[in-house]
Amino acid sequence: MKQLFSFDLQAVEGNARAGIFSTPHGSILTPTFAPVGTQAAVKGVTPAQLHEIKAQILLANTYHLYLRPGAEVIADMGGLHNFMNWDKPILTDSGGFQVFSLGEINDINDQGVTFQSHLDGSSHVFTPEKAVKIQEQLGADIIMCFDECPEPYDRSYNESALSRTHEWAKRCQEAHTRKDQALFGIVQGGIFPDLRVQSSQYIAELDFPGNAIGGLSVGEKKSEMLEIIEVVTKHLPENKPRYLMGVGTPLDIVQGVYRGIDLFDCVNPTRLARHKAAFTRYGRINISGKIYEKDPRPLVEDCSCYTCQNFSRSYIRHLVKSKEMLAPILLSIHNLHILIDLTSELRSALMSGTFGEFTKTYFENAQLNGCSL
Amino acid sequence: MKQLFSFDLQAVEGNARAGIFSTPHGSILTPTFAPVGTQAAVKGVTPAQLHEIKAQILLANTYHLYLRPGAEVIADMGGLHNFMNWDKPILTDSGGFQVFSLGEINDINDQGVTFQSHLDGSSHVFTPEKAVKIQEQLGADIIMCFDECPEPYDRSYNESALSRTHEWAKRCQEAHTRKDQALFGIVQGGIFPDLRVQSSQYIAELDFPGNAIGGLSVGEKKSEMLEIIEVVTKHLPENKPRYLMGVGTPLDIVQGVYRGIDLFDCVNPTRLARHKAAFTRYGRINISGKIYEKDPRPLVEDCSCYTCQNFSRSYIRHLVKSKEMLAPILLSIHNLHILIDLTSELRSALMSGTFGEFTKTYFENAQLNGCSL
Repeated sequence: MKQLFSFDLQAVEGNARAGIFSTPHGSILTPTFAPVGTQAAVKGVTPAQLHEIKAQILLANTYHLYLRPGAEVIADMGGLHNFMNWDKPILTDSGGFQVFSLGEINDINDQGVTFQSHLDGSSHVFTPEKAVKIQEQLGADIIMCFDECPEPYDRSYNESALSRTHEWAKRCQEAHTRKDQALFGIVQGGIFPDLRVQSSQYIAELDFPGNAIGGLSVGEKKSEMLEIIEVVTKHLPENKPRYLMGVGTPLDIVQGVYRGIDLFDCVNPTRLARHKAAFTRYGRINISGKIYEKDPRPLVEDCSCYTCQNFSRSYIRHLVKSKEMLAPILLSIHNLHILIDLTSELRSALMSGTFGEFTKTYFENAQLNGCSL
Repeated sequence: MKQLFSFDLQAVEGNARAGIFSTPHGSILTPTFAPVGTQAAVKGVTPAQLHEIKAQILLANTYHLYLRPGAEVIADMGGLHNFMNWDKPILTDSGGFQVFSLGEINDINDQGVTFQSHLDGSSHVFTPEKAVKIQEQLGADIIMCFDECPEPYDRSYNESALSRTHEWAKRCQEAHTRKDQALFGIVQGGIFPDLRVQSSQYIAELDFPGNAIGGLSVGEKKSEMLEIIEVVTKHLPENKPRYLMGVGTPLDIVQGVYRGIDLFDCVNPTRLARHKAAFTRYGRINISGKIYEKDPRPLVEDCSCYTCQNFSRSYIRHLVKSKEMLAPILLSIHNLHILIDLTSELRSALMSGTFGEFTKTYFENAQLNGCSL
């Protein structure tokens, strides 16, 4: 019988890798970036436009979809792929992060979390078993373990949360029944390298078909984030995909791939788009500036996205100033394209054995563009 | 020398006509509906999506674009076509209607109108000459005379406004210099048939390359609107396109074409889309209703638009309830498609000599669907 999931490395240079992750809804060429469709929709971007910018996988969120429209509605409509009209791979986050960041927590114990909905204050309980069950109803290709997400600098909270997260990972694995879904483990441990090592080893041992790094890009220093990525990837199996959760700026993606990450997701590209920001290859510009009033150039000169191929900075600035819906739409298309295109360039460099040169030039240009590395 | 503008009738049945209006940016097959891009953008819909729903011509607004970003900015960026990336015909409304409905009027006299911007309260003067000059800077293919838009039931105001509107039409014609733009006249006169006859005859005499009916669909009864359309079309030249301003429901479009209208525009399709409403072929449904929670059908069963080909009522209801930007986007695409597709069906019926049957069936179905004719 053909394996429903497999991960094959195609090229490796240093810690960086190019691979293929096969799923029941097609293969994902890594490294890549996954646009986030929290509520089963990437804000302002249609599936047709997502295909055009070569999105290979989308993210959706268990917490949000459980609350609205409800997992049962989506299951009855044939599952997430059918519901949101996306026939390529989908990943659902477990809702752990959202329960801790959006809901009002009433109680956390080893059994699970009792929280109030941010929508209507209604009370709900998430356990590892329930998070898995909801994700089975939603039907994504990749689903995530339910974890506790503590504040990254609180050592004692991270210690206690970590053993709970590990226990929960085991329970998620036991609860998971659908063979057409891959359950990924999540490494936690805040900014503490020793906790991260411990967590990586524990999660690696559970032998998930893929592993994620959670709890980063939540306020820690860049140098801390990069150190943790290095520590963790060293202890995660090479032959399984590695997913860095919630990371999504051009520079962070290059830094992540450089350290052995295969998959990224982040709300940044679409959220920044709603706040007038356009990604460049290295950082970003605020397009509402008066200097762009009569600027006939595209957002990024050599960008091949629909937005840059067809519209000027002058026009996009006008849309932003006029609060036209087309502003976040065109900026989202551009921002998502920039990240996806960058991962695809990184992949090409790996496949052609030029990753070292590519990243050297990239980091030099990033510094010239004012980024601190 | 080839004429830059021409209108050829291809089929006539009763008062209804199918034609071709040629412009420097291509031909418009009539009857048709023009999506409105008030601020040089159709709200939530990209030009690529507008091409997909077969939009032949877009509308933009002189009042709005004069205030922001300014006609000079658009002229410097190569004109409206280049600015908004729309290479097919564009029509700019003169701003008359907006000055009277949005601005705070400080003074109206025969010379022009002094008003305050709805954006920042700054004071501006529009005269017929200035409205034409701005429209020449914007560079649309079809531009409109500057007119006064009185309340439809006020007889004495309509009488005085009408003579001013007529005087202004003449001045617009004299002020207009660009040969690659067609200036259309506008018939006014409120709900008063005798004023409308007088206005039609006056405007017809000025021999514009096209004529519009203004001041309808502004609160009068349907029967009054239809009567005025009948009265006016009778007195407008047959060999010039007739444009019914601001009208845009499925039923009104069929009624308009039936009475000899060639071109329509309205903010309805996109505005209703932002208020949860989806057009059917006859009326509309509010998609936020609980009955649609698990409805797997498309908005309209036999609709060929992107939205109906790919998404269920259940999904669109979810987007609406979740306040996702994708809701107005998908509803706008659908609503615009419904109107444009309907005009194209009306045209096909005219070309094949089946317009009588087509409209008979349509009006019967409309009544079965609860519309009062």
